[in-house]
Amino acid sequence: NEPAAPKVLTAVPGPASGRHLKDLSEIQESNAVSLFVDYERSLGNYLVDADGNTLLDVFMQISSLPLGYNHPDLLNILNDPSNVKVFINSSSRLLPSPTWPMKLRSSLLRQIYLLFHLLHAYLLPGRLGVYRGSGEALQLGGVVALTSDVFQMAPKGLKHICTMACGSCSNENAFKAIYIWYRTKERGGSVDFTQEDIDSCMGNQAPGVPPTPASFHGAFHGRTMGCLATTHSKPIHKMDIPSLDWPIARFPLYKYPLEEHVRENQEEDRRCLEQVEELIHKYNSLGKPVAGIVVEPIQSEGGDNHASPQFFQQLQQIGKRTGAALLIDEVQTGGGPTGKIWCHEHFDLPEAPDIVTFSKKMLTGGYFCKEEFRPPQGYRICNTWMGDPSKVLMLKEVLNVINRDRLLDNVNETGDVLYKGLATLEQRFPQHINSLRGRNRGTYIAFDGNTGAKRDAIIGKLKQQGVHTGGCGDKTLRLRPALIFQPHHAHIFLDKLETVLTGL
Amino acid sequence: NEPAAPKVLTAVPGPASGRHLKDLSEIQESNAVSLFVDYERSLGNYLVDADGNTLLDVFMQISSLPLGYNHPDLLNILNDPSNVKVFINSSSRLLPSPTWPMKLRSSLLRQIYLLFHLLHAYLLPGRLGVYRGSGEALQLGGVVALTSDVFQMAPKGLKHICTMACGSCSNENAFKAIYIWYRTKERGGSVDFTQEDIDSCMGNQAPGVPPTPASFHGAFHGRTMGCLATTHSKPIHKMDIPSLDWPIARFPLYKYPLEEHVRENQEEDRRCLEQVEELIHKYNSLGKPVAGIVVEPIQSEGGDNHASPQFFQQLQQIGKRTGAALLIDEVQTGGGPTGKIWCHEHFDLPEAPDIVTFSKKMLTGGYFCKEEFRPPQGYRICNTWMGDPSKVLMLKEVLNVINRDRLLDNVNETGDVLYKGLATLEQRFPQHINSLRGRNRGTYIAFDGNTGAKRDAIIGKLKQQGVHTGGCGDKTLRLRPALIFQPHHAHIFLDKLETVLTGL
Ligand code: FES
Repeated sequence: NEPAAPKVLTAVPGPASGRHLKDLSEIQESNAVSLFVDYERSLGNYLVDADGNTLLDVFMQISSLPLGYNHPDLLNILNDPSNVKVFINSSSRLLPSPTWPMKLRSSLLRQIYLLFHLLHAYLLPGRLGVYRGSGEALQLGGVVALTSDVFQMAPKGLKHICTMACGSCSNENAFKAIYIWYRTKERGGSVDFTQEDIDSCMGNQAPGVPPTPASFHGAFHGRTMGCLATTHSKPIHKMDIPSLDWPIARFPLYKYPLEEHVRENQEEDRRCLEQVEELIHKYNSLGKPVAGIVVEPIQSEGGDNHASPQFFQQLQQIGKRTGAALLIDEVQTGGGPTGKIWCHEHFDLPEAPDIVTFSKKMLTGGYFCKEEFRPPQGYRICNTWMGDPSKVLMLKEVLNVINRDRLLDNVNETGDVLYKGLATLEQRFPQHINSLRGRNRGTYIAFDGNTGAKRDAIIGKLKQQGVHTGGCGDKTLRLRPALIFQPHHAHIFLDKLETVLTGL
Repeated sequence: NEPAAPKVLTAVPGPASGRHLKDLSEIQESNAVSLFVDYERSLGNYLVDADGNTLLDVFMQISSLPLGYNHPDLLNILNDPSNVKVFINSSSRLLPSPTWPMKLRSSLLRQIYLLFHLLHAYLLPGRLGVYRGSGEALQLGGVVALTSDVFQMAPKGLKHICTMACGSCSNENAFKAIYIWYRTKERGGSVDFTQEDIDSCMGNQAPGVPPTPASFHGAFHGRTMGCLATTHSKPIHKMDIPSLDWPIARFPLYKYPLEEHVRENQEEDRRCLEQVEELIHKYNSLGKPVAGIVVEPIQSEGGDNHASPQFFQQLQQIGKRTGAALLIDEVQTGGGPTGKIWCHEHFDLPEAPDIVTFSKKMLTGGYFCKEEFRPPQGYRICNTWMGDPSKVLMLKEVLNVINRDRLLDNVNETGDVLYKGLATLEQRFPQHINSLRGRNRGTYIAFDGNTGAKRDAIIGKLKQQGVHTGGCGDKTLRLRPALIFQPHHAHIFLDKLETVLTGL
């Protein structure tokens, strides 16, 4: 069973972590490592470190473990020998398994099914059989499907899926899909390349127009070269790495609390949107046409910077006016922490974004896209593996648990407790923290320390109290708990934070 | 047990693969897919397809399954509950497990231990305990280690390791390590950045000198943007994707058989080396200094293009003369298929290359490097996961099996059978095939069809005979069997190929 509370036996990190770090540093650059975690003993919302300290984990491997540590339903899938084989045989994208389409339909493309559940459970149990995970049953010889899923997985309007392995290759390849779409349009849909096209691309030269993506200051889209040229979070991420002259616009920086700064923040939206559109026109006229706009629904590494639904609605319109695709990068926000599977669902966009990328909590990486973003030829969006079927298997089980345990409801309920508690602390300790923010309900919440040093002190002291959190931006503390983080965990966190703020 | 021979029941691909393809195409771009593989029933060197055909697999997921399908020792590791936890808890690079350093030392940094084995097995069994995988024992309280490993894992002279998830992020990050090394040298080792450095990198502009890597025509280093700018295999891989003006030199294209073209091939080496050095000087003087030379030991996707040990020795010297690092990309060649763990071991380089990247057969991606290629600060070579500890766990078991079953010897023995058999067929069928080539012994062998169409016909007809192979370059057929491919498998392959060539 999950521990009832944090338990701290040594300084955090303690001497054992220190010894392991010394050992690791001999063979790996480890400047960013401090704490070593015992993954065998960690459970649920609690990590156990190398010194035996039990910490409430409100950061969860940068939002990457949707169900916390060692969730029994996930451990269980490896009791099935045929699942073990999926983990052991890495398979190339060119030779999929016959169950691959079904695995995608029952995970990433999972649908809402409501009424049939009753029919299945009470009226015709003998005839229909029992299938957990609904989508799967759809594949089985026309038997109508069955369970009571409360959410639809794929963003509404996006029916095509490309799996990848991490956030960086998800974004790199989504960018490529956008370039190919843009250039195919320019060719009037023709898939014949000219000899000039062929010769120039093989020599790293672009004939005519190399398309570019527009990104935002403060953005983080990954660290491989294409991603990194759209990432503008911290200098140390970009220093010394070759980059490209691509358009970079300002992302809104709001004043908090929002209710007290409505007019300024609207003005901020307007200024930023104006700049995006101007930049696109400028780069178009410079012969560096802007094929896409790349944006996070919440700039996470950059400091949990939010923008309004209106901002995103108008950004989509700018894309339409200028012929640029809209890519929403949900690598950190996707998978439920904002109380919806996708953060951009909160924006009420009149139609789907063109591409949505994901990774982290989704376990597999990849992107959803509209049909016209599927390249017209094979081998253009391609690599050896194109993601890992074992991660899709795990995701499917995660979705079963989210559905069965109504975890999105839990996220919303816990988010309310967290947010209200933090609002009270913010009022009590204005000399330490400010700018509490979150997307509607949900646990994807952040606040700022009054200085970067104060933020760092809070994170460090929370560790000594048995609470693991993380920073982002210059002075932000972000919360990224698992979907199983419940109201009573929120209360423990708030208690410990109060202790820390009182003692500062 | 592994099937005794191929068994073909339908056309390959058959109707079931066709149905699955239709289904998959509805939700994914699948132009490069044709065959669906039943990974539950595939075993050892044989894949079973969706139509129940049993094919001898001489391609092995583009060289990615070191021990073939469903190797019992790999399946076994998931009988250990603590291993299951490693597969289920994806862990961020910032929070390693206490066993991580030991896992690296007993897999990627595994050493040769010979004599102690006897001591252990016969003299002091009670006192020392039994540890498979030697390196691990080194960690256990000073007990001297034990087993009879016949190979050393890390390339000689490279003691530092960085794990990654795939070939692309391995190369992208190895490039970054080279840029950082180069610019740090320029700063005289200082780790203080100027304000100009900071401002310009955040705006995607380089102050002074953006370093570049030199690559070769015909190379393949991956498909994310930085990798793709050093990849020059096929136009369809690069079309429409923005690239950079980086130096690209000719890679030797030899005439075969080598014995009959010694002079021409030496001349070819000389010309290519001269061009590399000229290009580096040219780009240096253009203000695009060449920080590294990126090269495969065998250009694999580009058509299995080989170069002589002398070529690589002199390339290393060019790097030294011009101040450019030498990166050898062993993503496809590494892990044993050339009869040594690393293909570049065949080159007798006077000292280690600066960086060696790997993935595929190694299961985990990553790179080995010299100490000076470790960035002086944290967060510069960084991503959420930095590889997957479950893959390192699998690699460790693969290495145990390689060692126990003497698989490198098997590769050499089987390679001899393959090569000699193919040499005979090449002499009998000069109207169909030519240019047989391989690195010393080993199974990393290729030959050309007289035309691309003929190569394609051979691959297609081999499939109907129950043999799965792959193409590369314009007209090359490449063999990439698993390390467990034995002489009797080679004989089956040679028989079937003879049948196909006779019937052409
Ligand atoms: S770039 Fe995503 S796994 Fe390597």
